[in-house]
Amino acid sequence: MDKDLYEFLTIDTTSAKGKGVEGAKYLVDYMKDHNIEAELIQHKAINPYIVGEINVGANMTLLVYNHYDVQPVEPLNKWNTDPFKPTEKDGKIYARGVADDKGSLMARLQTIIEMAKEKELKVNVKFLFEGVEEIGSPYMEEFLKDYKDRLKSDFVLWEGSGRGPDGAPEIVLGVKGLLYVEITSNTEKDLHSMYAPITRNPAWELVKFLNSLKEGNKVKLPGFYDNVKWLNDDEIKLMRGDKKGMEEALAQEVPSDFMRKLVEEPTCNIAGIQSGYTGEGSKTVIPSSAFVKIDFRLVPNQDPEVVLDSLKKILPNGFQLKVWGKVKPYRTSIKSRIAKALIESARETYGQDPNVIPNSPGTGPMEYFARILNNNEIADGVGVDNVGSNIHSFNESIIEEDYRIAKKWMRLLLQKLS
Amino acid sequence: MDKDLYEFLTIDTTSAKGKGVEGAKYLVDYMKDHNIEAELIQHKAINPYIVGEINVGANMTLLVYNHYDVQPVEPLNKWNTDPFKPTEKDGKIYARGVADDKGSLMARLQTIIEMAKEKELKVNVKFLFEGVEEIGSPYMEEFLKDYKDRLKSDFVLWEGSGRGPDGAPEIVLGVKGLLYVEITSNTEKDLHSMYAPITRNPAWELVKFLNSLKEGNKVKLPGFYDNVKWLNDDEIKLMRGDKKGMEEALAQEVPSDFMRKLVEEPTCNIAGIQSGYTGEGSKTVIPSSAFVKIDFRLVPNQDPEVVLDSLKKILPNGFQLKVWGKVKPYRTSIKSRIAKALIESARETYGQDPNVIPNSPGTGPMEYFARILNNNEIADGVGVDNVGSNIHSFNESIIEEDYRIAKKWMRLLLQKLS
Repeated sequence: MDKDLYEFLTIDTTSAKGKGVEGAKYLVDYMKDHNIEAELIQHKAINPYIVGEINVGANMTLLVYNHYDVQPVEPLNKWNTDPFKPTEKDGKIYARGVADDKGSLMARLQTIIEMAKEKELKVNVKFLFEGVEEIGSPYMEEFLKDYKDRLKSDFVLWEGSGRGPDGAPEIVLGVKGLLYVEITSNTEKDLHSMYAPITRNPAWELVKFLNSLKEGNKVKLPGFYDNVKWLNDDEIKLMRGDKKGMEEALAQEVPSDFMRKLVEEPTCNIAGIQSGYTGEGSKTVIPSSAFVKIDFRLVPNQDPEVVLDSLKKILPNGFQLKVWGKVKPYRTSIKSRIAKALIESARETYGQDPNVIPNSPGTGPMEYFARILNNNEIADGVGVDNVGSNIHSFNESIIEEDYRIAKKWMRLLLQKLS
Repeated sequence: MDKDLYEFLTIDTTSAKGKGVEGAKYLVDYMKDHNIEAELIQHKAINPYIVGEINVGANMTLLVYNHYDVQPVEPLNKWNTDPFKPTEKDGKIYARGVADDKGSLMARLQTIIEMAKEKELKVNVKFLFEGVEEIGSPYMEEFLKDYKDRLKSDFVLWEGSGRGPDGAPEIVLGVKGLLYVEITSNTEKDLHSMYAPITRNPAWELVKFLNSLKEGNKVKLPGFYDNVKWLNDDEIKLMRGDKKGMEEALAQEVPSDFMRKLVEEPTCNIAGIQSGYTGEGSKTVIPSSAFVKIDFRLVPNQDPEVVLDSLKKILPNGFQLKVWGKVKPYRTSIKSRIAKALIESARETYGQDPNVIPNSPGTGPMEYFARILNNNEIADGVGVDNVGSNIHSFNESIIEEDYRIAKKWMRLLLQKLS
């Protein structure tokens, strides 16, 4: 196992538990030891940001974004090894963070250092490593605004990726956006259900409202699909997915065009609903309150503000609405230089076509980078994980060989970008 | 205050706390002391039944059904007086059970005893006093089956009643039925909501199913209204209700024909619903389970078994259904002899027309009495409570004068029935 990676993995950087400073110091010292100008910046988040730079006097600059914090390890009794004592077994490395995201970070960083030493680095590199990604990157928008001059760059290499379901390298060009709301209907007090013929029932009101939001899989919010940028045939052609593997992962059937749907379709999901008596047995009550939590996943070029306005317009009188989250979607063009460089370098590294996904089905703060840093060249590639990596779960692992391959991919990418 | 009532009220008979035997003994002794053949019967319920009889050799027999148990007094700090130390103030008597149901029981019992002494009793009287009504009358169906010969009668006087919202005496001729079910939809496991475009969401499935059950106020279950016996104009004419008083009680607007709706309309009520994340803030999850608790209140001549069958037929594949309760509706004809006797005796007692309600909007085990005792003459009248009696709540009370009036009403009723 790589000695530097090993040391980095032994440091507990569980941001949810307030840990991370030690890992940040290790990282910034490591960078300085290898002749990178680097600095810890204590901004508003609990863990410091690391900003660094190697300027080789090139025309082009790549910003490498990664995170050094990890998810909590619990339940600890499900781990076969100590999560902070990296262990090799059967060609794999087991440790918390080895797949998400310390492995990718270190493979990229080492490659850049090596190429700089060899005078082979023909592109300037900037670094932004954060320590609060696993708790939702709070203050990222503010941080980018405060440091946008220092982070100016031509390309951004996003934080993760690795091998997709069929073993091919995966390149992700964007993220979905999010609107998370809670909607409530109330009356003054709970009532005996004998009054049902003459009184309001907030649970029924909410059911009726929710029903009006969807028909089959279609979201009925006025204008919801107006701005959606549907995928073209070229984009669809590049995506591959293993239906059987996906069905095993989700423990249910999925449609045959599941990859297209995952990437392309915006959603309206009930994440939680509650009203009235939910204990054992029966209670005949008309509840005085009912609420639902809904997440809308949005695709380019939807805007959470526009969706929110549309929702407010159809909200029945007396319903309350609370917004818990708003993130804009983002997608880099497959014709961008970074996409091309990622695709070509992946193909040369792996000897096979990469799986190019226009956007993740999940959400991330990519749009902040694009907007605030004024940069449309942002994509996710050069990672060490695979579908069996157990990210966020116990027994997190990577295939040891993938660490070596990721460094090769990084080297080729840097060459393509120069 | 009546001495016997006072003593009876001092005995704690909170069935939910396992109390009642002492009250039962007091009552059976009281009855025996006044020359009523009476017996404690320890059946399957925690508190004994009291069965008694005064046979005056008449052609007709009235069964008087009441309960001697009471609801828990908590919260005790909201009472202005000791709930088991009956207190007179401003023309009212305050005590737990004075309105529900010890006051009615004692007023009826004393009147029967007095009339027997005076040789004025021209109808045989049987008594059934139970001690577990406040915990749902468990085993009542079995008890009636086991003792149906001893309870044979021509009329049944149900347990409660009193003054309605406008001060007029209230006569209730029946109860609604009930079907209480819990319906669940499941998948194997919770999923990240990014998979929403390709996976099932049990919460959405349940919302869609619930929506199919109702349109406006109409229940869409096939055949739901087929057997409903709608009220006729005569029945509607006799019902009166104070709209303003009802709106104050429920803290919301009610329709102008609220009394008719309460009595006549069967309902489908969401009593509880739950799925997914319901804590503070946001969690983007596709829940693996969703359930709803529904009570259907049924009117004559609906049958909970028929409604259940209809529900099962439209239940989507994979949904689970659990039945928590089934009670049949029941309604005595307004043309029955007991209804006529109650109406006439109430009019003479109060000098005003009674409020005659074809059935309560609530549910009770009246149908057992009708079916097992083979008796269609069952109605609720001659009570001591009023809309301000705080039944089941703190500071339960009756108007002292109403106790004297109830005895007068009982006397006239017994005369009419003979």
